[in-house]
Amino acid sequence: MELFNVLTVAQARSTLASHLPARTQAETVPLLQGLNRILARDITALEDVPGFDRSTMDGYAVRARDTFGATESLPAYVDVTGEVMMGQEAVGKLGSGQAWLIPTGGMLPPGADAVVMVEYTEELDTNTIGITKPVAPGDNMVRRGEDVAAGSVVLTAGRRLRPQDLGLLSAVGVTEVPVMLPVKVGILSTGNELVEPDQPAAPGKVRDINSYTLYGQVLEAGGIPKLYGIIQDNFDALQAAMRQALAENDMVLVSGGSSVGARDVTARVIAALGQPGVLFHGIAIKPGKPSIGAVVDGKAVFGLPGHPVSAMVVFNLLARPIIQSAGLPVQQTSFPLRAAITRNVHSATGRDDFLRVTLRRLEDGSIVADPVLGKSGLISTMVKADGVAHLPLTKEGVEAGELVDVWLF
Amino acid sequence: MELFNVLTVAQARSTLASHLPARTQAETVPLLQGLNRILARDITALEDVPGFDRSTMDGYAVRARDTFGATESLPAYVDVTGEVMMGQEAVGKLGSGQAWLIPTGGMLPPGADAVVMVEYTEELDTNTIGITKPVAPGDNMVRRGEDVAAGSVVLTAGRRLRPQDLGLLSAVGVTEVPVMLPVKVGILSTGNELVEPDQPAAPGKVRDINSYTLYGQVLEAGGIPKLYGIIQDNFDALQAAMRQALAENDMVLVSGGSSVGARDVTARVIAALGQPGVLFHGIAIKPGKPSIGAVVDGKAVFGLPGHPVSAMVVFNLLARPIIQSAGLPVQQTSFPLRAAITRNVHSATGRDDFLRVTLRRLEDGSIVADPVLGKSGLISTMVKADGVAHLPLTKEGVEAGELVDVWLF
Repeated sequence: MELFNVLTVAQARSTLASHLPARTQAETVPLLQGLNRILARDITALEDVPGFDRSTMDGYAVRARDTFGATESLPAYVDVTGEVMMGQEAVGKLGSGQAWLIPTGGMLPPGADAVVMVEYTEELDTNTIGITKPVAPGDNMVRRGEDVAAGSVVLTAGRRLRPQDLGLLSAVGVTEVPVMLPVKVGILSTGNELVEPDQPAAPGKVRDINSYTLYGQVLEAGGIPKLYGIIQDNFDALQAAMRQALAENDMVLVSGGSSVGARDVTARVIAALGQPGVLFHGIAIKPGKPSIGAVVDGKAVFGLPGHPVSAMVVFNLLARPIIQSAGLPVQQTSFPLRAAITRNVHSATGRDDFLRVTLRRLEDGSIVADPVLGKSGLISTMVKADGVAHLPLTKEGVEAGELVDVWLF
Repeated sequence: MELFNVLTVAQARSTLASHLPARTQAETVPLLQGLNRILARDITALEDVPGFDRSTMDGYAVRARDTFGATESLPAYVDVTGEVMMGQEAVGKLGSGQAWLIPTGGMLPPGADAVVMVEYTEELDTNTIGITKPVAPGDNMVRRGEDVAAGSVVLTAGRRLRPQDLGLLSAVGVTEVPVMLPVKVGILSTGNELVEPDQPAAPGKVRDINSYTLYGQVLEAGGIPKLYGIIQDNFDALQAAMRQALAENDMVLVSGGSSVGARDVTARVIAALGQPGVLFHGIAIKPGKPSIGAVVDGKAVFGLPGHPVSAMVVFNLLARPIIQSAGLPVQQTSFPLRAAITRNVHSATGRDDFLRVTLRRLEDGSIVADPVLGKSGLISTMVKADGVAHLPLTKEGVEAGELVDVWLF
């Protein structure tokens, strides 16, 4: 009988982190393939953006001091001595008492330090305008380097690239992006009761669910899933399949079997895979307690419960953060929804509880979470749910109306 | 001078919806390719899941009535007359006063209606056990069809498939999934000041940002983006490019140019594309007011502002919902984060304001939103932001501490 080492979720995470070496495998991809990838190193801007003082309005480039004191009744008169063409260099110099016509986005000519909106000017003749409202230096313009300064770090290693990040990379002229290789994840299901979805579910048999939920979860997290199918509850068969999955991937997930005997086979196979081996056997959560976490050859191996809901919850808590950061020791920031739970729910202290909920929006804009009833083994409860509410281990449940963290699933 | 038809966001959405025919283009994909796709029709289960009464515990299958009144001091004695093997049909019949050994996940034998956990039994001899705690019918088991009942609709048309949905489809034996074709989106940028990211940003030039942010946003929404590059601010060139993009896609996005003249060219080209044409020109939002919405040949066409932040916001409000539902008239439910804004922010009534914010978690678990300062044209502000806070058009701003909706970007 082996000793069970039951950890809290936080302990399980930190134990895993301390045993997993940071991954270094990176590649370079074209900018358009960068979405959702994890940046492998800091990106430093080589140029100012914009590369010139730039108007944000249609109007006239001026020296601000020429407009000081201007009013509708006593406009400041300046000579129109030039025009900025969109996308072209403003050649020449704007002198005192002068104005150049400028479009939104146009380059301010040397000498100008502000833009007067066309609404605050009046045309006196073809060469002279009256300015009816003063501007301060910098008004209605973006200064050279105000968006991005040359030499500054614009994006840091470990960041997941969002659409705006692609835009910023384009702005600074980065067309090839160094990103981490996605985490490859081998997925196995064990259980003599399981059959593939294309097989009939004869009496006593059920179709494999976990391979498919986990496949989807790995994809969503940015990993590359690979299914190894259903393995019989047999030490040799499971060991051979696990060894192959470990050799071909950066992480291995094995779920089920649900009976004590099958769980025992899974635990023994994981324990025999290599060093440092099993870090914890059991987590103080519900659902998901009978989970195993191990590190073998620098790769995380998880023994997940056979119950589909439990497997999903444990994956999200422990495996997903590693996949999402592509194995870099950088936590991706994420924020839960905060919603008011609609009924009292008991939970034991010393254990993190995760409760399936549906969400509703009330008239006042607030969001409430209704617990989904039904046994934890039923996949249909997870299909009904919008997410899971977290009842933290420090609390003995929550009362109706209390705000809880809800993680969308 | 054309008449500007400025709508609220809600009006713009409903106007678009009433002019866009529901798409019908669907395809069938293997289950593993179904993630995030939009279901094209309802899925009905052809079988019960599970297909048999199933134990959720390791223990003994019994007739519940044989256990009534059992206590530790006065156990109910039953004969062990069989054993259920995992994944095999339980053949035979459990009679009165009998028990069968059963593993978690095993099939209850005919005649049994409950499972006694092994913890509440004591072995008397090899053929007899004492039960120390009564069970009710249905205890420690899942009834046939309790997860999914044959004939029930398990997933409805328009639903975006999540990992748990893939699991459910596997459970009911669906290995090919009817899904909508993704929305193809043509993306054009206009502006004589723009250059491609691999080009030097000569004085007066800036690199194209919107093509890249929009490309990422379309991908995130589940669409298929295609870039048509930078088109000069010239009626004929822009018209030719827009016509091509419209012919090759289900939606067209054109952003910029930022100056009045360039905006005017864009508006005239969209107006000349076809019927019913422009539905609104201007939306009561900030940023993003100078946006155009049109429907041509049953396809949505958007003229987005040149400012990257504005273009992102308008895309998310108007284009994204259409792409996310794959053109079906089904709104995808989504919930914003609710966060307390950390400073007073003024906004005009009659206009929806969207404010870039970063999020922070406080000790008590609540989430606060700090406004990001900086001009709206700066892409760096969107890179800093975690999302945008919505200040609704019914309100004159918000006060520090007030809860606002934050949409992650």
